[in-house]
Amino acid sequence: MTSARYTAALIVTVLLGAARPAAALEPIIHSDRSVTFRIEAPEAQRVQIELKVDDLRGQQPAEMKLGPEGVWTWTSPSLDPGFHYYFVLVDGYRCADSANPLFLGWQRPTNGVEIPDPELTSYLPRRVPRGDVRIHPYFSALTSQWREAYVYTPPGYDHPDQRRYPVLYLQHGAGENQTSWMRQGRANTILDNLLAEGRCQEMIVVMDHGYAYSGESSDPSGQRRHNLFPRLLLEELIPEIESHYRVIADREHRAIAGLSMGGGQALSIGLENLGKFGYIGCFSGAVREVPLPADDSGRPLDMATINQRLKLLWIACGTEDFVIDRSRALHEQLDQMGIEHSYITHAGTHEWQSWRRHLTLFVPQLFAP
Amino acid sequence: MTSARYTAALIVTVLLGAARPAAALEPIIHSDRSVTFRIEAPEAQRVQIELKVDDLRGQQPAEMKLGPEGVWTWTSPSLDPGFHYYFVLVDGYRCADSANPLFLGWQRPTNGVEIPDPELTSYLPRRVPRGDVRIHPYFSALTSQWREAYVYTPPGYDHPDQRRYPVLYLQHGAGENQTSWMRQGRANTILDNLLAEGRCQEMIVVMDHGYAYSGESSDPSGQRRHNLFPRLLLEELIPEIESHYRVIADREHRAIAGLSMGGGQALSIGLENLGKFGYIGCFSGAVREVPLPADDSGRPLDMATINQRLKLLWIACGTEDFVIDRSRALHEQLDQMGIEHSYITHAGTHEWQSWRRHLTLFVPQLFAP
Repeated sequence: MTSARYTAALIVTVLLGAARPAAALEPIIHSDRSVTFRIEAPEAQRVQIELKVDDLRGQQPAEMKLGPEGVWTWTSPSLDPGFHYYFVLVDGYRCADSANPLFLGWQRPTNGVEIPDPELTSYLPRRVPRGDVRIHPYFSALTSQWREAYVYTPPGYDHPDQRRYPVLYLQHGAGENQTSWMRQGRANTILDNLLAEGRCQEMIVVMDHGYAYSGESSDPSGQRRHNLFPRLLLEELIPEIESHYRVIADREHRAIAGLSMGGGQALSIGLENLGKFGYIGCFSGAVREVPLPADDSGRPLDMATINQRLKLLWIACGTEDFVIDRSRALHEQLDQMGIEHSYITHAGTHEWQSWRRHLTLFVPQLFAP
Repeated sequence: MTSARYTAALIVTVLLGAARPAAALEPIIHSDRSVTFRIEAPEAQRVQIELKVDDLRGQQPAEMKLGPEGVWTWTSPSLDPGFHYYFVLVDGYRCADSANPLFLGWQRPTNGVEIPDPELTSYLPRRVPRGDVRIHPYFSALTSQWREAYVYTPPGYDHPDQRRYPVLYLQHGAGENQTSWMRQGRANTILDNLLAEGRCQEMIVVMDHGYAYSGESSDPSGQRRHNLFPRLLLEELIPEIESHYRVIADREHRAIAGLSMGGGQALSIGLENLGKFGYIGCFSGAVREVPLPADDSGRPLDMATINQRLKLLWIACGTEDFVIDRSRALHEQLDQMGIEHSYITHAGTHEWQSWRRHLTLFVPQLFAP
């Protein structure tokens, strides 16, 4: 739509207050699970779609073809069920198709397309009691910044019985943020559905941003700096949650899990603080070596104590995931060390459908009375 | 950044789990309040910035100039303090600069730039107790769709005293959604600050999407259809809120307000349901004529009853706002009808800085005991 036409349409919308938002050129999902993408850009010389069907394998952007009315199209091969990120490139400029849904991934709002899954449906909303996801602002002294935690409270949380709940700290992957487990992962919907089926305990789920840096929010030099998130979680986030929500504040009722980068964070924060966490989940974890299990003061623990403290250490990975070798090596190293754990593999890639599956399998194992 | 370099950077991020997110080319705000926009698009033929400095006046896009390293720049004239939407056009394609913050406006995620205001500061976060904004999912039978209300609860809401609270229903403008009063308007921060200063009553603020259509979510024909939102608010949203939150459910403790299109909605829903609402706020309202005040069954009321029921009817508009003539006409018509109200004007345009100001002035007048 031209700029003048767009503005004119909006003026009509404002003054009449009744217009339906303009229709987007949505991706068309075909029955064979291929997808036709459409971008209206009549003046562009070249338009591409960069589809991230297994996140990090670095597919080359696909060339779209210009058709009638300035609309470029490209049809993908058949895709796996689940959620796939994609970028639009217009004459080489990587941008978002802001007429279609955006999700925080790849360090920025990124488009996503959802292919229905005939098997896994735990993330689809059902007519069951729904919990809220609370945007909880708090000030971090460590970074001198305001942050927002996303906090799922189960449907019964506001009842006047004043019950207290166990807590799962749930971390996203690289380039994502505190919104991603809700928006891409549908973690709140998965919890609502499991609860309605009586398949898990009621719990609070805390989703925070897994990056924390002191000083200014941007770093023009582009240099990598030390991520303070593990310290922030232990020193600021947990106390913040425990002073604002009705939480059972002990290791038997505190879990940590995450995906990819967040799986590595969960494994190291969890194992290095076995006085704080009784349950650890590592989903498609990007892990180089097993952290040395320790109590909260950094004192190493003997194997009997480790296994007594660890009520669950759960490792999962898809067999088509590019980190499958690391996951298997992690499993084998844990075996060699004598650390009890579960190791699950399944058909799946390094994508959100795997992590929805992992959460659906992991949560029912937490906090059994 | 090229596609390959971008992917490589992300892989490093994933595996090391410590990289700082890549620096964006942020808009540079100069001391004279002009702004330099920067877009890296070395292969583009033409890049423009479409800055919406007074929302609907339909400025022409400005031509950016290509400089070193493929970065296009354009410097705006001096801008008013506050929040301004802008679009990026790359070879005519209207897109979002997804490396910079996006806000739901103009029916889609849209960039925004924030010019500090030396006078109005009520929307800046302070180290005071903060309320949560709850994302509350609910199913609408009227539209057969899941919706999300954003519900601000004041800092004391979770205390075990089980107090009940009055409610303000607060509506966004055309092309915006339930996130806009929080993200652009900073309504939750304004409430937190007013509460900390003892300048307003504790209240719940409900922000929902002011559009509601039955049937599918997209309408390929592009035809306008009847917006069911007023019915949805009365028949579904208010009962939903009152069954899930600790609310005082009477007209003395229920307010409705909105901006632009939402101001028109607040005025008509409020005046036509004076059995339900005691307080009405119309901020830069896009209003053609005064709705006939009525009780909830549509029965017209006499002027004495109207004025007795209306604890506050508050109309506000900036003098540079393109709807100032409509606002003045509304004020005069209310005067002619004998409907008591407040009419406030101030220096300001049809933009968020005016609406932050309106909310800051309106909220302290609500629910005085």
